[in-house]
Amino acid sequence: MLLSSESTKQEQLHPCDAYTRLKQRFRDVGRLEAIGEILGRDFLTAMPDGAYRSRLNQIAYLFKRVHQDIITPEVRRLLDEAITHEDNHGADWDDWDRSNLRAMNAVYEEHSLIDDDLMEYNAKVANEGRRCHRLALENNDWDMGRDHLRRVVDVERRIAEKKLKARGGEDLYDALLQDYCPGYSHSQIDKWFKLLEKEITTMLPRIMERQESRPEPIQLADFFPVKNQMWLNEEMLGLFGFDFERGGLYQTGHNPVEGGTPDDTRLVIKNVDTKNFLDSLKSALHEAGHGLYIQGLPRKSWRYQPVAAELGAAMQESQALLVEMLIGRTEEFYEFLSPRLEGLFRAMRDPTLHPENLWAIKTQVRKTVDRKRADEVTYFYHILLRYRLERDMIEGRLDVDDLPALWTEELHNLLGVMPQDNAEGVLQDVHWFVAKFGYFPSYTLGHMLAAQFYQTMRQDLPNFYDLIRKGEFLPITKWLNKHVHSRGRLMDSHELMRDVTGQDASPDFLLRHLKERYVYQNPDIDE
Amino acid sequence: MLLSSESTKQEQLHPCDAYTRLKQRFRDVGRLEAIGEILGRDFLTAMPDGAYRSRLNQIAYLFKRVHQDIITPEVRRLLDEAITHEDNHGADWDDWDRSNLRAMNAVYEEHSLIDDDLMEYNAKVANEGRRCHRLALENNDWDMGRDHLRRVVDVERRIAEKKLKARGGEDLYDALLQDYCPGYSHSQIDKWFKLLEKEITTMLPRIMERQESRPEPIQLADFFPVKNQMWLNEEMLGLFGFDFERGGLYQTGHNPVEGGTPDDTRLVIKNVDTKNFLDSLKSALHEAGHGLYIQGLPRKSWRYQPVAAELGAAMQESQALLVEMLIGRTEEFYEFLSPRLEGLFRAMRDPTLHPENLWAIKTQVRKTVDRKRADEVTYFYHILLRYRLERDMIEGRLDVDDLPALWTEELHNLLGVMPQDNAEGVLQDVHWFVAKFGYFPSYTLGHMLAAQFYQTMRQDLPNFYDLIRKGEFLPITKWLNKHVHSRGRLMDSHELMRDVTGQDASPDFLLRHLKERYVYQNPDIDE
Repeated sequence: MLLSSESTKQEQLHPCDAYTRLKQRFRDVGRLEAIGEILGRDFLTAMPDGAYRSRLNQIAYLFKRVHQDIITPEVRRLLDEAITHEDNHGADWDDWDRSNLRAMNAVYEEHSLIDDDLMEYNAKVANEGRRCHRLALENNDWDMGRDHLRRVVDVERRIAEKKLKARGGEDLYDALLQDYCPGYSHSQIDKWFKLLEKEITTMLPRIMERQESRPEPIQLADFFPVKNQMWLNEEMLGLFGFDFERGGLYQTGHNPVEGGTPDDTRLVIKNVDTKNFLDSLKSALHEAGHGLYIQGLPRKSWRYQPVAAELGAAMQESQALLVEMLIGRTEEFYEFLSPRLEGLFRAMRDPTLHPENLWAIKTQVRKTVDRKRADEVTYFYHILLRYRLERDMIEGRLDVDDLPALWTEELHNLLGVMPQDNAEGVLQDVHWFVAKFGYFPSYTLGHMLAAQFYQTMRQDLPNFYDLIRKGEFLPITKWLNKHVHSRGRLMDSHELMRDVTGQDASPDFLLRHLKERYVYQNPDIDE
Repeated sequence: MLLSSESTKQEQLHPCDAYTRLKQRFRDVGRLEAIGEILGRDFLTAMPDGAYRSRLNQIAYLFKRVHQDIITPEVRRLLDEAITHEDNHGADWDDWDRSNLRAMNAVYEEHSLIDDDLMEYNAKVANEGRRCHRLALENNDWDMGRDHLRRVVDVERRIAEKKLKARGGEDLYDALLQDYCPGYSHSQIDKWFKLLEKEITTMLPRIMERQESRPEPIQLADFFPVKNQMWLNEEMLGLFGFDFERGGLYQTGHNPVEGGTPDDTRLVIKNVDTKNFLDSLKSALHEAGHGLYIQGLPRKSWRYQPVAAELGAAMQESQALLVEMLIGRTEEFYEFLSPRLEGLFRAMRDPTLHPENLWAIKTQVRKTVDRKRADEVTYFYHILLRYRLERDMIEGRLDVDDLPALWTEELHNLLGVMPQDNAEGVLQDVHWFVAKFGYFPSYTLGHMLAAQFYQTMRQDLPNFYDLIRKGEFLPITKWLNKHVHSRGRLMDSHELMRDVTGQDASPDFLLRHLKERYVYQNPDIDE
């Protein structure tokens, strides 16, 4: 190349020639994947409707090419050569190179399980599902989504079978789970979820009792202009250090989407509700957590290399929920926000905007049908519901036709509430429609990891709550960047948790956090 | 594929298996090229700045892959087989298939001349040039652009050498010219341009004389809000039948860009000037001509196939200039527009907006330094200037360092005006910076073809000027679609001109049009 190009560690020659060539190969694959991200973003935010079908085919075709580029015999041969070289010339390999090679091999293994037509088909189904879900939801029409969902389950089962056969493992669901929660098994999750269910169910009556003894918060009712809300959301992202030179925040009619690349991180939230700025703020904070993770990946040295990727959905959600739920629901957060909201929304000394009131709204525990509006405590039940149902679908124990009825029944068993219709029920989430089976547990795992990071972070950052009260979020982002974001896949998520928090992942931190915020906090109640 | 996909003629099995396989191959190539169009559009309209360099590399890499996909030995073998089959089984091949095969072969030949690193480098230089030009122009700093331009000339000369060697031809410039004005040689262009220069130079004093005998038009001076202008521009596109379901109109800080695909035609004009709505309207009409051509290509049957492509820059510009200059500068056009402008811009019975005044502004002939604001008559001199200079650069007779001085000198010789600085001079146009050497003549060729179509169209459409006066532009678009757009590359542009107008391309039509509109129209002056 004659033009100056990204000069990075990935471009350096390594004593192992096979590894050097692998780095070039994965750089090229990474470029195509980055192009796929742009197509997806454009698909949601800018593409004219008439391009819908041809765009689907273009995206699917691109993913097929990526797949074909990875699973060549040459890549396998280069991987074997590099692995042998690493064994015999260990001194030539630093930790990053070793992790990169391991990650390359994992990418290869994963792709080699699936043939390329199935890969293309899966990409198309997944992208088609976003619109299909939106239409079914807007029309409150389960029938509009059912056939698509049936196709997805069918494809996912076929993929799971191939993965299970190649990798071994307990069951089909476990095989899919690895894509989102790598290193976790469903039996591990079952154990943790059982504990969480028991503890939260015990905690809940006491929380409700305490809550009833207090005045109801004043709910938002004003008109909050879209422009003002988006200004606030963007400013908050900015305070957390989100780099708008390398990204942005957009609204769309679709469900929120995180993603992109460290160079081009466009976050997408659902169109702003003018009656409730807290909803769009919550969504923006959630996506901010994802966006900071993506922007903080080791871009300069390792752009496009597998070692520069995130650690999967569970770790991703930990970052999103840490910002949205852990930090974004502290009392101090609303102390910072409140006076600024009075100015922004032209409501001087409006009691609705008082910090105590906003905080009371955000920490109000209410059994609801809506996962996305659920409070931090009952959120778990929504995940548990979805986890059980998706496991049963993949394991062939639940037919897609029976899903709406079972959803309603199980939700009622868990939370005692009933959705009015399918839009409030089974059509709530986009995940299954875009072929994300095995994703849901990552929210609760992410919540667990977030609470665990939160504990360590508060020890490491003196005056933690003062920082929040002053709107100084950068030290938090720096901490996350140092311990999580900038490391990419240098370690796996289990090694990372031990390294950062000194302990394996555990639900204890989440339970302690929930007790702290929702039970003990009132000194009138003691254990 | 399990999902319903585009079912088109390109998917049909042909008795010649090699041709069927070529159609699949070129469909896939077409998909990657369509992806490249989206990346380019996103690059200009939505991409965050920080993604600049990595995006350049992604686009360049994608073009390299396209290139590699085309020039495989397998494609060559399939082409040879299909050509033999066509020779021996002529009855199996209809006109479209024949033209498609010819176009496939041409694409292969063109790509096989250039190696893939040069292709990648060229794509990068071309895309980088857009920003480089913008910065140099904004800062009025020739030095900021010079080195880039030198690199471009160097690359283009290397490409021209390869093309010349393989194709034969008179000189390096001719080799590049083929990419934009296929089938035209510089000696043909020299002959036509000589005639045009002579005739226009003769015409000009009489036009000026006549013009001076009339009152000066009142120039626009009001404030014309961006939103109103963009509404007008979009509505005008709509009246011409531009399909917003498959495209849109956008503003950017860069120079205008046409392009995209028939499914996704996003037109880009330069940011609107609030002091002059006629400028953005002109630009929108120009891009509309391009956009209608692209949207009208034979998308349903032949999407992605080489036969469904446009006929090159000269034909493209004929469509753009037909809308912008031929139709968009009729008196009737302003009769339609004027009363609506009074309402849109809140200026009831404002003499500035009277049809006669607007038409006088648009047909005012003035020697100016600015190609894009040039009138229809002196426009030719701007092209002549650029054509001569770019020829000399490619032929090695003019060093890039000497370009600004020579530009000024030659412009003065041709038009008697002097640019104040390089921004008004050599930095005016983006074309050379984005490696489009050989493009400029296509404006005058396009103007010629436009005048030739215009003549036939007026014979075919009764009450032609009434249609314009009523804002009924659809019959015009339909005529163009039938005779030009929907035919793709079924014929080459020379066959097409003969088929549609009954005559070979000739400057006579343009000269007659200029005389009609600018000289004879005033009955006081006779020939």
